[in-house]
Amino acid sequence: MKAGLAKGTRDFLPEQVRKRNYIFSTIREVFSLFGYQALETPAMEQLDTLMGKYGEEGDKLLFKILNSGDYLKDCSSEELQTASSQNLLKKISEKGLRYDLTVPFARVVAMNQHLISFPFKRFQIQPVWRADRPQRGRYREFYQCDADVVGSNSLVYEAELMQIYDMVFAQLGLPVKILINHRAILEGLAVQVQAQDQFIQITAILDKLDKIGQDGVRNVLYNLGLNPDQCSWILNQIEKKKIEDYQFNDHAIRATEELQKVFHFLKSYSFKNELVFDPSLARGLSYYTGCIFEVVPTQAKMGSLGGGGRYDNLTGVFGLKGVSGVGISFGADRIYDVLEEANVWPDYLDNTVKAMILSLDELSLEEAMIVATHLRSNKIAVEIYPELSKMKKQFAHAEALGAEYVIIIGETERNEKMYNVKNQKTGNQERLTIDGLIKLLS
Amino acid sequence: MKAGLAKGTRDFLPEQVRKRNYIFSTIREVFSLFGYQALETPAMEQLDTLMGKYGEEGDKLLFKILNSGDYLKDCSSEELQTASSQNLLKKISEKGLRYDLTVPFARVVAMNQHLISFPFKRFQIQPVWRADRPQRGRYREFYQCDADVVGSNSLVYEAELMQIYDMVFAQLGLPVKILINHRAILEGLAVQVQAQDQFIQITAILDKLDKIGQDGVRNVLYNLGLNPDQCSWILNQIEKKKIEDYQFNDHAIRATEELQKVFHFLKSYSFKNELVFDPSLARGLSYYTGCIFEVVPTQAKMGSLGGGGRYDNLTGVFGLKGVSGVGISFGADRIYDVLEEANVWPDYLDNTVKAMILSLDELSLEEAMIVATHLRSNKIAVEIYPELSKMKKQFAHAEALGAEYVIIIGETERNEKMYNVKNQKTGNQERLTIDGLIKLLS
Repeated sequence: MKAGLAKGTRDFLPEQVRKRNYIFSTIREVFSLFGYQALETPAMEQLDTLMGKYGEEGDKLLFKILNSGDYLKDCSSEELQTASSQNLLKKISEKGLRYDLTVPFARVVAMNQHLISFPFKRFQIQPVWRADRPQRGRYREFYQCDADVVGSNSLVYEAELMQIYDMVFAQLGLPVKILINHRAILEGLAVQVQAQDQFIQITAILDKLDKIGQDGVRNVLYNLGLNPDQCSWILNQIEKKKIEDYQFNDHAIRATEELQKVFHFLKSYSFKNELVFDPSLARGLSYYTGCIFEVVPTQAKMGSLGGGGRYDNLTGVFGLKGVSGVGISFGADRIYDVLEEANVWPDYLDNTVKAMILSLDELSLEEAMIVATHLRSNKIAVEIYPELSKMKKQFAHAEALGAEYVIIIGETERNEKMYNVKNQKTGNQERLTIDGLIKLLS
Repeated sequence: MKAGLAKGTRDFLPEQVRKRNYIFSTIREVFSLFGYQALETPAMEQLDTLMGKYGEEGDKLLFKILNSGDYLKDCSSEELQTASSQNLLKKISEKGLRYDLTVPFARVVAMNQHLISFPFKRFQIQPVWRADRPQRGRYREFYQCDADVVGSNSLVYEAELMQIYDMVFAQLGLPVKILINHRAILEGLAVQVQAQDQFIQITAILDKLDKIGQDGVRNVLYNLGLNPDQCSWILNQIEKKKIEDYQFNDHAIRATEELQKVFHFLKSYSFKNELVFDPSLARGLSYYTGCIFEVVPTQAKMGSLGGGGRYDNLTGVFGLKGVSGVGISFGADRIYDVLEEANVWPDYLDNTVKAMILSLDELSLEEAMIVATHLRSNKIAVEIYPELSKMKKQFAHAEALGAEYVIIIGETERNEKMYNVKNQKTGNQERLTIDGLIKLLS
């Protein structure tokens, strides 16, 4: 049989795992520094938990799992004959794969509310699955990296999350602009043009400003039923660059107060990247109610590398009302692509093992075991070439693996307990005792 | 709606994640010390890749994923009317969830054989899914931790893998016995009683010795068609404790030579646990062909905590023939349960954040942001209590989270830039500058 991957999925070979883990651990360490704690949820959720949470399109993109055993046992042959994919689904599938990390998080909070001390700061770095049509940069299995805090509406958290974005991208050496806006400004715009009911649609339209430009936005707003003056007014408003200029109604005033407070909390923090108020920032998701964020790279051509915002009622659907929260997310796959293109990975990611031991004869292979044991008990990662192949072949393997040093053992070396060690980069060779090796390689 | 988990799955709250990560990272570090490199494969595989690899029972226990979109579109209503769960499956599902890490590993090696420098040492720590009936200690989603090397039949690897077992369990503080045997001894037994065709069945029977005892094994062997003398001979053979006593035919002689070589490679290594030759060790899986291993705890009542062995043709089914390999696996869930019962987790796992900052008024909350920024830029994990609640409530939250220190800021503290810090364990209090805090908490 021909070996193949499921469509839209990927294997990660060791070099890719090292690079991905570098991104994940950078994010994880900064999350931890800010007191966020790791949570993990299962890949499979009850379909009830997932369906209806991501819109109609989302329901379609959920991967559904066939019930185990004789999954048709409750279906009569009459039912089957007239079955459509949609009405049969309820009978044959009751589980689905996680579609994002937010809904499972809300479920966990609702289920464990009596165990949790609020505010609850959690981060979660796990894969999600979507039956999207695969294309460049879009996969059916991909990782999300989320940090959220629920159970407080303090703006301290908005400020902290901006610091997290700044620190992560500074550590990754990836210059970004962090954009911030407030949903109440957008809501204020809709109210001001007597279109409060269309607030979500207007938000979705403004979200496309980057792609379709001012005229595009003007057209779509007009088609939504706004008159030309209203369209122009909205487009003029979101041109203003200063927070204090947004005072046109109560909604906008609440937004500016909160935004100013966030900037105030940050006044003594020196950003390595720029934090910018951007009134045209909209964010597509409907559940945001307060500050919203997005991160865009300043040097690479790539969409946003992360985003987030405050929401008021995430856990409500699971029976826990009135819990406010705010969170951010990192797009690990895009960050990977940007780092890969700029090739700014740290050098140490090339190193797999510190040294590989090559042996010239059978007794030297036994000696190699002894040397390796000493080195490993000193926390030095070493490999033994396990066969008595030609030196050329052994060296080629050490090269392929990226061993920093090669240790060669033959009759003289094992008799004198002095081992030949070669730095693979510089070509330098030395003869060292076991203690000398430990010192060199530590 | 009522929030619930899919049957047989678990959430891991922060404390559990910390404990689980402690196990995983201990294993991962030892794997890396021996030059094993991380590989990751997708959760979903083509059903073709998975079906037929785990026996008939395994095929049933695979979680199958419904094709996305209108999954019934290729089924006529006649077909549907007479459909059985089994014959409909091929039409509506072409993907399944990973059942173990071995088959995906074989697929990766076959697909990437020209990119890989052999011998290829990989480890993989990822969840797998099985539609087993859930029960105590058995879950539908659980992690496997595997290390395998393919592309060499050197016994250096068997020796190294025994050291890996020893080092991991020593580091975890969990005393074990590491059992080793060789499939060729078992094959030799079958040959000697003229039952070579029944070698796999005999192996499976001997594997049950622990559970059904000598008489049980004798009965089942007898029912298999062996005469009483043959049954007794087999049972007598596996009573012998010394490797050199197994010389009864060519199969057994090959086995003893290989086992002796493994012990020889290990003669200068001082085990912290015991490595024991156990001729009754059988291992259920049919694909093993050389040395086999199992790890059992010596103090806890629990089945094996890991196992493995050498196999000759894992990648053959994917078109890459003649690749020998050897590997081991750790049972992370059982290790967790044993550590939990003995409560031998390291103390540092209790610590979530180093300090929590409590504020007495609004201006102190701003000061808290400044102090937190200083501490975090010195890699000290701190939390800010984000609201001006009663001190009792703020302290209770610090307690619940397990913060080691509490820093209290009020008017005096922020004016004098001297901060009150309390060690939550000892109750000791000090007043320190920001530099003093950094020194204390680093």
